[in-house]
Amino acid sequence: MTTEVKPSSRERLLEAAATLTYRDGVGIGVEALCKAAGVSKRSMYQLFESKDELLAASLEQRTSAYVAMLLPATDDGRSPRERILHVFEQVESQASAPEFHGCPYLAVQIELKDQSHPASRVAHQVKANLTTFFRAEAEQGGASDPGLLARQLSLVFDGASARAGIQADSLTGLIAPTVTTLLDAAGVR
Amino acid sequence: MTTEVKPSSRERLLEAAATLTYRDGVGIGVEALCKAAGVSKRSMYQLFESKDELLAASLEQRTSAYVAMLLPATDDGRSPRERILHVFEQVESQASAPEFHGCPYLAVQIELKDQSHPASRVAHQVKANLTTFFRAEAEQGGASDPGLLARQLSLVFDGASARAGIQADSLTGLIAPTVTTLLDAAGVR
Repeated sequence: MTTEVKPSSRERLLEAAATLTYRDGVGIGVEALCKAAGVSKRSMYQLFESKDELLAASLEQRTSAYVAMLLPATDDGRSPRERILHVFEQVESQASAPEFHGCPYLAVQIELKDQSHPASRVAHQVKANLTTFFRAEAEQGGASDPGLLARQLSLVFDGASARAGIQADSLTGLIAPTVTTLLDAAGVR
Repeated sequence: MTTEVKPSSRERLLEAAATLTYRDGVGIGVEALCKAAGVSKRSMYQLFESKDELLAASLEQRTSAYVAMLLPATDDGRSPRERILHVFEQVESQASAPEFHGCPYLAVQIELKDQSHPASRVAHQVKANLTTFFRAEAEQGGASDPGLLARQLSLVFDGASARAGIQADSLTGLIAPTVTTLLDAAGVR
């Protein structure tokens, strides 16, 4: 028999904030967040200075799982080209889920429209780290211009996530040929 | 002497809705919209069934100016390749404005997270028309797979607008080489 540890108020608030803002947007009210978490407003404000801080912490807390889902394992023996394609296979597979609303770190920045918001700053960093990953792989793979390729792959990542998130496109037969064309043009074989 | 026609309550509401939702997001309240437009709530609800309908109408009303700004004139004598590149030059030039928050028709769909919302439906149609433009030009330009190229260009359009809108990238030296690579790969000379 395993002993189940009941999640703390803090954990339940982080979970509710991540889930509800992704589903409904950053405009979700404090009441709704507290209700979903089963935590009083008073307790919430004891744990977090503000809703903004709760939102930032909820994005921060999800980051390691998100990165692990998206990126290949370090030194998995595959080529840079394969490691880059791995990321886009994950996006394509995620995007087919009915509850997919695009990259949460892109959505939160578009919704907040304020790059100095604590949640925007967390999201900005997560996305900058993805560009850094692309750039390192591009360099490793001998890209003619690793900086440009990293920016292009970030653009495709965000464009694909956004379009799938608004159901403008399914990504099937789109994302792999696009990334392949860019890798070929950069000389990453 | 020209006679200035004072904008009607309806026009002022449409203008306020378009401007404020683009700047602050779809969560903007009815009070704020009416205040900016100088129109009473009572008058607003006489003109529009709901805030949702006002939002949809404001997007609809901006569409012709948006399309005229973005697309080249019909039969301007340029090649399909140049006509496609024209669209992306407009995006790059728009994106450098400090008040740029990305494509308004993408943002509203990401924010609403509900494709059946009347404003999402307007936005979806505007974006579908852009893909139709790309497809027609791709066919005209002899693309090997016009459907794929149109999807790729739409993806680049949304990725570029989104990234510039959240200040993740400036687009300079990015959008033209990316589109050029895709046009070359599709055989559009």
